[in-house]
Amino acid sequence: MALSTMIYSHLPAAQSSLTTLSIIRANQALVLDRPQTEPSNRASRLAESVLSHLHLHVEAPPRTTLPQSHWASYSEEKLSTPTISPKEVIAHKWREIHGSTDWDNLLDPLHPWLRREIVKYGEFAQATYDAFDFDSFSEFCGSCRYNRNNLFDKLGLCRNGYTVSRYIYAMSHIDIPRWLERSHLVDTWSKDSNWIGYVAVSDDEETRRIGRRDIVVAWRGTVAPSEWYEDMQRKLESFGQGKAKVEHGFHSIYTSKSDSTRYNKSSASEQVMREVKSIVESYRKKGEEVSLTITGHSLGGALALLNAYEAASTIPNLPVSVISFGAPRVGNIAFRDQLHQLGVKTLRVVTKQDIVPRTPGLVFNESLQRFEDITGTLGWVYTHVGAELKLDVRSSPFLKHGFNLTGFHSLETYLHLVDGFLSTTSPFRSDARRDVALVNKACDILVEDLKVPHCWYQFANKGLVCNGHGRWVKPTRDPEDIPSPVREENVHKFAVGTQSQVVLEPRYNIA
Amino acid sequence: MALSTMIYSHLPAAQSSLTTLSIIRANQALVLDRPQTEPSNRASRLAESVLSHLHLHVEAPPRTTLPQSHWASYSEEKLSTPTISPKEVIAHKWREIHGSTDWDNLLDPLHPWLRREIVKYGEFAQATYDAFDFDSFSEFCGSCRYNRNNLFDKLGLCRNGYTVSRYIYAMSHIDIPRWLERSHLVDTWSKDSNWIGYVAVSDDEETRRIGRRDIVVAWRGTVAPSEWYEDMQRKLESFGQGKAKVEHGFHSIYTSKSDSTRYNKSSASEQVMREVKSIVESYRKKGEEVSLTITGHSLGGALALLNAYEAASTIPNLPVSVISFGAPRVGNIAFRDQLHQLGVKTLRVVTKQDIVPRTPGLVFNESLQRFEDITGTLGWVYTHVGAELKLDVRSSPFLKHGFNLTGFHSLETYLHLVDGFLSTTSPFRSDARRDVALVNKACDILVEDLKVPHCWYQFANKGLVCNGHGRWVKPTRDPEDIPSPVREENVHKFAVGTQSQVVLEPRYNIA
Repeated sequence: MALSTMIYSHLPAAQSSLTTLSIIRANQALVLDRPQTEPSNRASRLAESVLSHLHLHVEAPPRTTLPQSHWASYSEEKLSTPTISPKEVIAHKWREIHGSTDWDNLLDPLHPWLRREIVKYGEFAQATYDAFDFDSFSEFCGSCRYNRNNLFDKLGLCRNGYTVSRYIYAMSHIDIPRWLERSHLVDTWSKDSNWIGYVAVSDDEETRRIGRRDIVVAWRGTVAPSEWYEDMQRKLESFGQGKAKVEHGFHSIYTSKSDSTRYNKSSASEQVMREVKSIVESYRKKGEEVSLTITGHSLGGALALLNAYEAASTIPNLPVSVISFGAPRVGNIAFRDQLHQLGVKTLRVVTKQDIVPRTPGLVFNESLQRFEDITGTLGWVYTHVGAELKLDVRSSPFLKHGFNLTGFHSLETYLHLVDGFLSTTSPFRSDARRDVALVNKACDILVEDLKVPHCWYQFANKGLVCNGHGRWVKPTRDPEDIPSPVREENVHKFAVGTQSQVVLEPRYNIA
Repeated sequence: MALSTMIYSHLPAAQSSLTTLSIIRANQALVLDRPQTEPSNRASRLAESVLSHLHLHVEAPPRTTLPQSHWASYSEEKLSTPTISPKEVIAHKWREIHGSTDWDNLLDPLHPWLRREIVKYGEFAQATYDAFDFDSFSEFCGSCRYNRNNLFDKLGLCRNGYTVSRYIYAMSHIDIPRWLERSHLVDTWSKDSNWIGYVAVSDDEETRRIGRRDIVVAWRGTVAPSEWYEDMQRKLESFGQGKAKVEHGFHSIYTSKSDSTRYNKSSASEQVMREVKSIVESYRKKGEEVSLTITGHSLGGALALLNAYEAASTIPNLPVSVISFGAPRVGNIAFRDQLHQLGVKTLRVVTKQDIVPRTPGLVFNESLQRFEDITGTLGWVYTHVGAELKLDVRSSPFLKHGFNLTGFHSLETYLHLVDGFLSTTSPFRSDARRDVALVNKACDILVEDLKVPHCWYQFANKGLVCNGHGRWVKPTRDPEDIPSPVREENVHKFAVGTQSQVVLEPRYNIA
């Protein structure tokens, strides 16, 4: 039976119950209009008891207090400071940045070039959250809001110098409808699949800067539990050769397919591998050096490892690295050893206070802001792989240190901490430029003095617009942003910028 | 000791506690991504026990089910139907519409001209919610987002043919900070006062249509408890002449003032009466007939009664009517009798399933979506006044009938039910034109088939915008929308459209 916990922190009182289904949830609804002061006391005590139940220890860190004048001058300055620094040419050092020396002497202190690359890949992972359609009243719930040709433009990521070549969709054979991230509507883009990530390729300019043609695969971490909650008998599943085993749920998401679906006639694994192989071949024919960098946060970090294993196993001489954020453990020791033998270089970015990387099989449902324990309390042999960049919430003067499951695990918190990390003995980087406000996009962890609303990433009127008759309606999606399995499946896409010949299925064939 | 209750309805389980501080709250956070089906069962049982504790009986109405094809065709049709019908000239009938015959033979069936007028005044009351700044990270939290000259324009209410002449501010002498609807920031527009409503006057065209110059006072119902939660010893307070008494908290909001404040050097009562008297005199000098119509929802309906009493007491021969929505009882029998003797005509619009009008002193905090019992369980002699238009949630095929404290009490639900009401024996009006989507602005009561998101009235990114440097910041408010006590206090404003000579205090003197 899975370990299970609910925490509700309310004003004026907090309530809790320990049941048998595992949920840890910080209720944010009431935090909106008042500062987090007293309320967290009782919730914190409950959280401590949960953590003790999980055999975890989370330190109660000392509170850093800065004078209000500090925040005033910070805010003034911030308004007129660009978020982007000049880029360095890293062509001669890219192999080390991607782990050829197992990141020896690059992590502490953190090499500034590596820092920038970690943030770049983290932003690719963040894009899978920011563009995901969570709207259960949309017929496109579970898809990406934008087509691959304008994804980076919509999210302001064009500056990273990559172009998306393909979207990846995943499903799971066991359907648990009440957990599924899918539309309430009858007629929808897909009943079975969710957008789970994408493949992108560096453009010529970025390729020159980083010394090789880089393929990125970014895996979405948001967990629609149908994607992993196969059954209550959680178990390890064989993967690859020999004794390597990985968590059953991650394996299912990565490998499930069904001819009766629109988007998973091939599995996520097949989709991504076909695309990566095709791109590698294409650029190798041109005599270019090619690398594969796989990234993901939370569950996405787990999928990244499976993907890396498969890519390294099947594509000869391809440098494969993984940069994961807050990822849970995925497989057994044999899996780790084989990854090592295959030459996969893994940099796990973890935050000391985040419990996900510390608990086998614990993943996080971003949309529900809830943790789910998928491994139970079995004495599993799951193990972490690769090198670790360890961050500490306490290092940032911008973050509240009070217990905050959502905030500690949020990818934006990770990116903020990476941006400010110099070394384990140095204070937060004073010239860190990443916009601090981003941290509160989907959580409430910035100190109140910064005056940034919590969970602020939202659409005006939940996407409703007032039409000419004064009626509030959901606008139709731009035809080019409507997902099409044909477009995803059959078109050669890494010839970037070429207009695909698309045959839309009848329902979505909007002229 | 006040009666007290908490209800949390969660998926998959609901939790409750009955404590001594009165809160009834439907947790909506988890409703977002799934239909309300099973979850409400346990919550409903809890709600029933609460209601029984409150000595209330709320019927569990039968569920009307319509075929899905109905909703599809409804949605199609709706998109291209105007929300506004042609207006009738009601000049010869306005006195009856405003209660000269105590609405005999006008309510059941509901006279269509009266229906339209009720909706008009209800929209004026709704404006006090829609324009209120709830943002606790704004220095203007607790004010109106827009200045009085563009309020109706911003909210699409210009078509009603009125012009705002003055904003009203209220405070209470007893401050309970953790309940106050006010900014977290240090430097704010006001520490003590909230925007509580406004005075408006019909323009020439509307005046011709309705047969007299109509002054409207709209009172905001959202309760910042500092406005009424004077102490736990709730009591009746003498008001006006003789034995008339009204609830202590309502009285305090209406009459409190302090020289040390910026916006309440005069009380809400003094502000509104000075303005109304001034307008009445001005138009009477021109030989015009003038009426006063006071409206409000919930607490706003209570304030409307106090205001009506005072206006009828102090301005001779002024026809005063009140159209209130979901208002609680306000005073004792002597208060009711005096209102009657003063000739105040009161039309109370109530919904059968809404518990606020049924419970003395129960008011509703819109921003916290929570009920507050301010009368305790004393055997009070509070009584309702005037005529009643009784609505029934079950009359509308668009509404879910399951227990829904927020939805039943919401003003938009009231306006929807008025719009569809023909008579107690008729089904919902088939040619009702008000946009049904509005009902879900701040609650979750529309049937799922309509596919309208719940609580959809929200700003993109909570008002943050991305500046030229890629940083997310709160934009400064337009100077003309910054509240100024000078502008509110000293300027003759009913000469509508005239630019006021404004001397702003230093902090807000933004050029």
